[in-house]
Amino acid sequence: MIGRMLRVSIFGESHGRGVGVLIEGFPPGIPIDEEYLARELAKRRPGAPLTSPRREEDKPEILAGVFNGRTTGGPILVFIRNKDVDSSFYEEVKMKPRPGHADYPAMVKYWGFNDYRGGGHNSGRLTAGVVAAGAFAKRLLSLFDIRVYAYIVRIGDVEAQVEPVDSDEFRERIYSSPVRCPDPTSEKVLVARLREALSDGDSLGGIVEAVAFNLPVGLGDPPMDGLDSDLAKALISIPGAKGVEFGLGFRLASMKGSEAVDPWVYRDGMIMTESNKMGGLNGGMTNGMPLVVRVAFKPTSTIRKPVKTINLETMEETMLRGKGRHDPCIAIRAVAVVEAYVAIVLADHLLRWLAWQPVKSRISG
Amino acid sequence: MIGRMLRVSIFGESHGRGVGVLIEGFPPGIPIDEEYLARELAKRRPGAPLTSPRREEDKPEILAGVFNGRTTGGPILVFIRNKDVDSSFYEEVKMKPRPGHADYPAMVKYWGFNDYRGGGHNSGRLTAGVVAAGAFAKRLLSLFDIRVYAYIVRIGDVEAQVEPVDSDEFRERIYSSPVRCPDPTSEKVLVARLREALSDGDSLGGIVEAVAFNLPVGLGDPPMDGLDSDLAKALISIPGAKGVEFGLGFRLASMKGSEAVDPWVYRDGMIMTESNKMGGLNGGMTNGMPLVVRVAFKPTSTIRKPVKTINLETMEETMLRGKGRHDPCIAIRAVAVVEAYVAIVLADHLLRWLAWQPVKSRISG
Amino acid sequence: MIGRMLRVSIFGESHGRGVGVLIEGFPPGIPIDEEYLARELAKRRPGAPLTSPRREEDKPEILAGVFNGRTTGGPILVFIRNKDVDSSFYEEVKMKPRPGHADYPAMVKYWGFNDYRGGGHNSGRLTAGVVAAGAFAKRLLSLFDIRVYAYIVRIGDVEAQVEPVDSDEFRERIYSSPVRCPDPTSEKVLVARLREALSDGDSLGGIVEAVAFNLPVGLGDPPMDGLDSDLAKALISIPGAKGVEFGLGFRLASMKGSEAVDPWVYRDGMIMTESNKMGGLNGGMTNGMPLVVRVAFKPTSTIRKPVKTINLETMEETMLRGKGRHDPCIAIRAVAVVEAYVAIVLADHLLRWLAWQPVKSRISG
Amino acid sequence: MIGRMLRVSIFGESHGRGVGVLIEGFPPGIPIDEEYLARELAKRRPGAPLTSPRREEDKPEILAGVFNGRTTGGPILVFIRNKDVDSSFYEEVKMKPRPGHADYPAMVKYWGFNDYRGGGHNSGRLTAGVVAAGAFAKRLLSLFDIRVYAYIVRIGDVEAQVEPVDSDEFRERIYSSPVRCPDPTSEKVLVARLREALSDGDSLGGIVEAVAFNLPVGLGDPPMDGLDSDLAKALISIPGAKGVEFGLGFRLASMKGSEAVDPWVYRDGMIMTESNKMGGLNGGMTNGMPLVVRVAFKPTSTIRKPVKTINLETMEETMLRGKGRHDPCIAIRAVAVVEAYVAIVLADHLLRWLAWQPVKSRISG
Repeated sequence: MIGRMLRVSIFGESHGRGVGVLIEGFPPGIPIDEEYLARELAKRRPGAPLTSPRREEDKPEILAGVFNGRTTGGPILVFIRNKDVDSSFYEEVKMKPRPGHADYPAMVKYWGFNDYRGGGHNSGRLTAGVVAAGAFAKRLLSLFDIRVYAYIVRIGDVEAQVEPVDSDEFRERIYSSPVRCPDPTSEKVLVARLREALSDGDSLGGIVEAVAFNLPVGLGDPPMDGLDSDLAKALISIPGAKGVEFGLGFRLASMKGSEAVDPWVYRDGMIMTESNKMGGLNGGMTNGMPLVVRVAFKPTSTIRKPVKTINLETMEETMLRGKGRHDPCIAIRAVAVVEAYVAIVLADHLLRWLAWQPVKSRISG
Repeated sequence: MIGRMLRVSIFGESHGRGVGVLIEGFPPGIPIDEEYLARELAKRRPGAPLTSPRREEDKPEILAGVFNGRTTGGPILVFIRNKDVDSSFYEEVKMKPRPGHADYPAMVKYWGFNDYRGGGHNSGRLTAGVVAAGAFAKRLLSLFDIRVYAYIVRIGDVEAQVEPVDSDEFRERIYSSPVRCPDPTSEKVLVARLREALSDGDSLGGIVEAVAFNLPVGLGDPPMDGLDSDLAKALISIPGAKGVEFGLGFRLASMKGSEAVDPWVYRDGMIMTESNKMGGLNGGMTNGMPLVVRVAFKPTSTIRKPVKTINLETMEETMLRGKGRHDPCIAIRAVAVVEAYVAIVLADHLLRWLAWQPVKSRISG
Repeated sequence: MIGRMLRVSIFGESHGRGVGVLIEGFPPGIPIDEEYLARELAKRRPGAPLTSPRREEDKPEILAGVFNGRTTGGPILVFIRNKDVDSSFYEEVKMKPRPGHADYPAMVKYWGFNDYRGGGHNSGRLTAGVVAAGAFAKRLLSLFDIRVYAYIVRIGDVEAQVEPVDSDEFRERIYSSPVRCPDPTSEKVLVARLREALSDGDSLGGIVEAVAFNLPVGLGDPPMDGLDSDLAKALISIPGAKGVEFGLGFRLASMKGSEAVDPWVYRDGMIMTESNKMGGLNGGMTNGMPLVVRVAFKPTSTIRKPVKTINLETMEETMLRGKGRHDPCIAIRAVAVVEAYVAIVLADHLLRWLAWQPVKSRISG
Repeated sequence: MIGRMLRVSIFGESHGRGVGVLIEGFPPGIPIDEEYLARELAKRRPGAPLTSPRREEDKPEILAGVFNGRTTGGPILVFIRNKDVDSSFYEEVKMKPRPGHADYPAMVKYWGFNDYRGGGHNSGRLTAGVVAAGAFAKRLLSLFDIRVYAYIVRIGDVEAQVEPVDSDEFRERIYSSPVRCPDPTSEKVLVARLREALSDGDSLGGIVEAVAFNLPVGLGDPPMDGLDSDLAKALISIPGAKGVEFGLGFRLASMKGSEAVDPWVYRDGMIMTESNKMGGLNGGMTNGMPLVVRVAFKPTSTIRKPVKTINLETMEETMLRGKGRHDPCIAIRAVAVVEAYVAIVLADHLLRWLAWQPVKSRISG
């Protein structure tokens, strides 16, 4: 479960009946309908040939918590039935754990009772539930003019230069790009590199960056529930995520203090920092600058190139060749998930922050 | 609060009465005494001149939860009184927020009521409580032969080559090094670079790596409470941490799938992976290989070199020169904290994992 | 959400698409199928004419967490679609809050956006989700030979004398009784009193008692998470519950200390208490005796007799006459819910307790 | 731990270094000092001879979270050192578990490692931490004009008639009464009955009632986190509490629906109920009427009259005669604890409720 005031729990299996999400603590009166959810879920489904040929017609059903087109204040349950599921590959490799996947640890942890098909409840398919919850969170944030954008800044050895802007046009550029990269120049190189990897039967890693604009100062509850802590927990839970960083992140480790300064300045009647090397966070709290977070994704582990593994029955080495439907770069599909998780964590912390505001006015008054 | 079965909450202020930690859910019968805690806390205090001249004589008091030298099974409270506190600098800069610190967001979030001296409850001083809790967690882990090591792998532009080994000698090398780097060759360069930074009135960033040996397969509760998720939440909460990665982490984002494979093999009667690019984790669960996690720390923000900020009363620009006592590289002091947090999260997940084992034998039986 | 190791969250609305439950932390390998769940859900549906004529054909769907007839160790989602729903009454009384119901506070709390039909997400209908979760919990408990029984001990002014026994026959007597009272003599009086109330257009309160046998000593985590505390939280959440007590409960308040003693004795090679006035609990922990808990239910608030309320549009007084389908005594239907909640809380605490046992053997060894 | 937005954790042992409480999530700027806390703690200490002769000079130390006389918004730690502790009795009875106490289950649960003196961390002494936290909560509630009162309504077979009033004078009557009963007529009988029990070497049970005035409509988060659920969890955790009820509570179980009605009426420009049989709660939410909750306490188990128990070394029966210092009626001392817990739970739910209010204005606007 993620969150304190706004709590989100995902469930489901890749090749079971479906996946979904339970959302608790969401305020009433926010307009939501299944069409909007379906559009949001479609963001996880970039166009062929760059992603998995699996055609998930993600038709979300809101089974609870929405009445007459608005949230009720009660628990919300969204369910997305699975379709178009071919499990034959998984029967074949049941005893041949895929390198880089959770097959083996899951078999040990769950004593062989887990749904081994397609990763079961460890599958990336469960992020559909995250995107659904994010759709709710974004509607809540939009009441406070807070907006979140996520996009690709790296695929394999190609880095994209993206200058995020708080605009609908920027968002459209992201989701009209098959690689979720709003920079047209970079996009072409990224697409070429992906085609190359595909034709090699290989895959590529990538980095997703998210930025959030218009945050109030002071979101985050240090010492142990800082906004960055809660974001890191959520973002690392995305299948394939192997690293998370804020602002300049790991680059700060190589820098001097005098180079890593964000001086406070007063501009246009506002207190802000001259640069944003810290990604809008000081001590786990927002500082009024845009929040910047990046998530590193490993390359898709299942590839058409044969990889070595063992047969768990014979303990002999064997070669495994991916036959399931997999994206050549999971980072692309993860863009919508990163956007959703950032929105969820922000909405949770916004509600926590809002709870104190009436107290403030009573103390001052 | 961190944890489910083992729950840890830190508290206190840098320049208040002291800092400490509440530990709930810790099993009874584990031997602990204040001398052991004091030795553990001393690990946060590397020798001069590489760290802050502030001489914290960290004398932990166990105020609850230990009886006759063993844990009772009830809540544990450790308190560490502050000594040797000079707050004059903070009075001076009360209205001049230090760049890179939480001063400004804290003032806004807490409406000016926070203890602004030395960062108050956002100070790195609170990590003493983390180290105390880690000391308990390590005793619990040691019953299961699980051991955690943390050490420096980078300071500024110098990368250290460290080959972690599961041995007391390796641990001694870490903590006998003033820069917490067990590699003697790297150590000399790191020390030189730090002296240079100090004499420039500057500071340096760094990276701390932690490794845990002998973990059972299947620690971690995906889809939302993976071991990596809970580690990321804890580690990012350390003041100055700006990034966390597992295994090859961000480097995986630049790789091809065929390069990023950890093939399953059967060696010496054990199922393992041939390489450990994933850092011992698949799908948020341990896979039997050593856990490897890295945390990036920014350079200490307060330096003797003057930095620009504003006076919040006049909104005019002003220069601020650090006078308080600060380490030239917070990553060094953070080594003991990273080690502690990894131990805490592992102990929590170990208890969760243990809870299911008797069920397993009933099902099989 | 209820629970720490085993976590249960219900959702849904009385007149929406359905109700259900999310179960997290449940161990793998436990056999479960939808037929078993359907049988358990049928326990909430006593025979006419003593309960609501609403024919809920509660056909549970397991949407996640069960694979090949066994739990997977992942999140479990059970959904029960609503059928046979007549909402016309609720449209009529939308602005006439029913006394004793949550209509008015819900309207204020949710700013009018809640699903007002049949109580929405505050409806007793949601307890179907509790019963489904309880079915899972009971299977887990049965691996450890722990069994829970609940039954009626009072309806209106009639008290039933029930001597609980740990046997299948006792359970059959409970659920073959239309009033869920295993004592045949009392049953007849209770039935008569219910028919009388029904013919008067009135309803009756009642008390449900639950008993659990074969518990290990030491379940419960004081000082703040005692077994009684967690049971009280769960049981009071059942719609209509207005009181909970353990052992002799409120009767103990009128007694002297010398009368309220459960002396420790050694019988048949076992340490036990001579009496069980404390209901098997000391200091929030099980003491080896049967757990005894009782829950008081108010009479069904909606009755055919007219009751006074106001029209929220005109603020004028008006009379309201129940037309929906309601049980004359909600305590009867609550029997299965009390049984389920006791099983859920016990299963959660059993898992917490099991987590420490391997530590014990390492300390002793 | 109790609470979501405002989180309270108690710790300590009866005969250890002391007891205390960690409070997290408390808003900044609320004036608090140790003198106020000491006065609040004194409420747990009624005058001789009706309570334990143990003279706890409860001098609370605020070790964290208060700065310049106001809360900081960070974690608050209050510690109360133990004094005047005679543990000799407990050494004697170490292997003779006291009936009605947690001695035996604690010894089993904690494998003999618990602090057995005076109940260790299961002692009523820990409620000092609750009262300290309640003192903070009441200050927060008072900003919103919410006030809580608790008082004795029964000791043994004597019931007191108390008509609660929202006034300082009513509170003074409570705490100036040695039996915490604001009704002078009842008080005399109660005192006589207590003296009688004392001279018999016996003890008496009792009932504490609490009432809260001026609550907003809609506090409480059904379906699983109703205000009554959270109150029940907290109140049952008080040592000696064996039952909790709301409004008419268990009496409702004997009533007809037509008798148990609280009709909605419009009086003096306000929507309210004509009676308050439900104790101000419908469906787990406040309804605008005063909250009424009652807690049943068993008689003090340790009495001077000899009680039967066994010697755990020989398993032979033996007689035990209380020598420690104990109140003849723990309900009296519990009055301040009930008041504190009700305030804590209300403050937590008030903050949750406040979090949604700014959302409301954005939706309407």
